Amino acid sequence: VIYLDHFFKPNSIAVVGASRQPRKIGHVIFKNLIELGYLGRVYPINPNATTVLGQKAFKLISEIPDEIELAVIATPAPAVPANMEDCAKSNVKAAIVISGGFKETGEDGKKLEEEMLRIARDAGIRVIGPNCMGIYSTTPTHAIDTLFLPRYRLKRPKRGDIAFISQSGAFGAAVLDWAAELGVGISKFVSLGNKADIDEVDILHYLEDDQTSKCIAIYIEGTNRGRELSEALKEITAKKPVIVLKGGMTPEGQSAALSHTGILAGTPQIYEAMIKQTGAIRAETAEELLDFSVALSNQPLPKGERVMVVTNAGGFGVLTADSISKLGLKLAKPNDEIIEQIASNMPQRVTVRNPLDLVGDADPERYRIALEALTKDPNIDSIIVIILVQTPEIDPEIVDVLTNITAYYDKPLLVTTVGGELTQMLTKMFTEGGISTYPTPERTAKAMKALTTYAQHHMRTEAST
Amino acid sequence: VIYLDHFFKPNSIAVVGASRQPRKIGHVIFKNLIELGYLGRVYPINPNATTVLGQKAFKLISEIPDEIELAVIATPAPAVPANMEDCAKSNVKAAIVISGGFKETGEDGKKLEEEMLRIARDAGIRVIGPNCMGIYSTTPTHAIDTLFLPRYRLKRPKRGDIAFISQSGAFGAAVLDWAAELGVGISKFVSLGNKADIDEVDILHYLEDDQTSKCIAIYIEGTNRGRELSEALKEITAKKPVIVLKGGMTPEGQSAALSHTGILAGTPQIYEAMIKQTGAIRAETAEELLDFSVALSNQPLPKGERVMVVTNAGGFGVLTADSISKLGLKLAKPNDEIIEQIASNMPQRVTVRNPLDLVGDADPERYRIALEALTKDPNIDSIIVIILVQTPEIDPEIVDVLTNITAYYDKPLLVTTVGGELTQMLTKMFTEGGISTYPTPERTAKAMKALTTYAQHHMRTEAST
Repeated sequence: VIYLDHFFKPNSIAVVGASRQPRKIGHVIFKNLIELGYLGRVYPINPNATTVLGQKAFKLISEIPDEIELAVIATPAPAVPANMEDCAKSNVKAAIVISGGFKETGEDGKKLEEEMLRIARDAGIRVIGPNCMGIYSTTPTHAIDTLFLPRYRLKRPKRGDIAFISQSGAFGAAVLDWAAELGVGISKFVSLGNKADIDEVDILHYLEDDQTSKCIAIYIEGTNRGRELSEALKEITAKKPVIVLKGGMTPEGQSAALSHTGILAGTPQIYEAMIKQTGAIRAETAEELLDFSVALSNQPLPKGERVMVVTNAGGFGVLTADSISKLGLKLAKPNDEIIEQIASNMPQRVTVRNPLDLVGDADPERYRIALEALTKDPNIDSIIVIILVQTPEIDPEIVDVLTNITAYYDKPLLVTTVGGELTQMLTKMFTEGGISTYPTPERTAKAMKALTTYAQHHMRTEAST
Repeated sequence: VIYLDHFFKPNSIAVVGASRQPRKIGHVIFKNLIELGYLGRVYPINPNATTVLGQKAFKLISEIPDEIELAVIATPAPAVPANMEDCAKSNVKAAIVISGGFKETGEDGKKLEEEMLRIARDAGIRVIGPNCMGIYSTTPTHAIDTLFLPRYRLKRPKRGDIAFISQSGAFGAAVLDWAAELGVGISKFVSLGNKADIDEVDILHYLEDDQTSKCIAIYIEGTNRGRELSEALKEITAKKPVIVLKGGMTPEGQSAALSHTGILAGTPQIYEAMIKQTGAIRAETAEELLDFSVALSNQPLPKGERVMVVTNAGGFGVLTADSISKLGLKLAKPNDEIIEQIASNMPQRVTVRNPLDLVGDADPERYRIALEALTKDPNIDSIIVIILVQTPEIDPEIVDVLTNITAYYDKPLLVTTVGGELTQMLTKMFTEGGISTYPTPERTAKAMKALTTYAQHHMRTEAST
């Protein structure tokens, strides 16, 4: 067994600090584990209670008449070394230390962290944390959720193809919540916290061969293993895309990151060079981290940079052309035969060029005619479809049209739709149908650029092996 | 009376082409006018019906036994010159030509447009359009809505302080719909279309002294009056902010804009220089156009560029510091006394610096203590508050805390909150309370930059007069 399986596929879990009080984090973690689909055995550890949520409580892990594979520790920091001793005595394989109050608080906390780690190392226990949110995994056989926030505060995203590593717990929580709202699915999430033992390099290597994760998104503020991180990224990007958002890319951000994590952020130049050289995709914002992950986890890779734009709103066609050009992509020049074929099936006021403006009264059928022809054009490497629902003829039929086309199209097709309530409804329908949809022309174009950048890296890697 | 009042404050309107069929745009326009709060008299013009929506229909405007101030024309293009003759005969003062099929379709359409315009000019009738959405105005005494889309497709934004001019109708519609969803208010909206007669320069001058509009957002693809536009912007930005999004800022976008509007876009360099020299604020995306308008319409202007950041999530503090620094703003250095005052009222694990991380268990009271002190600090020019609702102690009380503080604070205070459903609820509550709230650290920082840029221009203008 790979040691990280003890975290992601444990057969039994003890929650240390499983309080009876609903607001305590140990209570929420225990409750979520027993309610949110974890299929293994879970035990509450609480010296002051006989039962928690109707389940028999134990004073110590060592009192449980069962093997415990994973301990989730949510007690006050000063108690954690003793908890770890208990884990050691009980042959626990892995521990997630949720508790804060360690290195991030200063010298005393640092000593406590070192003491806890020494005990774990002596016993061969691997540790995630401390000062973290732990793990959220949607693997069907081993769903696991140690996020200490109730679901009304932090919605859980559905099962999906994106793995997500965050050094910051709150950053991770906010992005998960956002993903859930957008209908974006997650395979595995890890909040790393202080990284006393396990860090991003370890998790990256684990995710490298994880079949449930088609791409990896990572938020990082600093690392103590720059060289290993660089090697891991290089190795993994040959197999699947890794999108990196680095916090602390300016002196001001760096200094904030230092005080936040106690880890030196490293110079921005070093990270910038590393991301580029390893073939990872750089996100500059949280929005890009999510946007790029959505495209890279479910779109085919483009073979070139020639983008076709189809729209029912001229203005957004213009802005999309601007974005494509600024990002160094190209507007495709459709084949003459294809142009003629489309033109012969369009009202006269539609002029077939790129951007192709189907004009304001375009209905789903007009999109179908245009897209069916364009998907056959070898001069086109990818398509951006803009659909404004504020026009009179767009109805839900458009979702069928696009899902039918993407079912056979082996190049990327991204959608832009801008607006309010009806737009968001349509976006959710598209997302359900596996079509990556973005709320502005610029975000769509950037996602296409991320696909193209990764595709180029992928082709270079393939050519060199 | 200023001539544009005939459009924005008409006492009577004739809708030419007011069909009985619910899907026809003339029908929707007539219906919206009689249902959406227009207080004047409205008449349907329809040669084939005796009534429309229960109101007596007329064959011609000249048959109406009433003075008609504004005609809204929604007939097929070939009929429009005759409609305009009817307007001329009836002493109509202003006409909005919604109909498409003019210059944007080629030579024949261009001739039709010229014919229509000649008739209007001879009769002294001013024209908005053709090929446009017309006007949406929320002025209490003269609410007017000629948008030809039903409300289930295009939500109408509430009354507010932002005026919005769009060359592209669909762009305008999508942004209005989006604004409605976000709870952002609009004073007046104009869709310019082909600009046969009235263009952005005319509207800008009208909005210059419009008390209901505190800032002006404009989407433009090209103009035939570059010098006048430049002069108008210069004059108006001395009084209120103007945010400009220019479509066609690359050769590709320019060429798309030309085919979209038939107006040469002008070189990007010229526009860039013009925007800068006139003191207008440049938006690079639709998102920025709206984001900047929200801040500039309801925030005080900062006296400098020193930003204080308060957060309950370290990671977002880091990303905010990064953004502030990249944009050329500065992290404020709070006064020592203020630091001490805050520190003495905080748990020990909170270290008072900038970004000020109130840590994950911060409650609204902790925010109140910190913000009440920081608002007194002369070393701080503006504040960004990050509030993650995925943390355990944030409740709706935080809205009261912030609205109480912004009620007396005479510097800008912007909020970042990232996440899903609960986050969006909180955002709506903040927006209702007049607090500009953004969904990512980067967008908040950019809005602060826009405020700062306009404030600097404003100070220069004041100093030179």
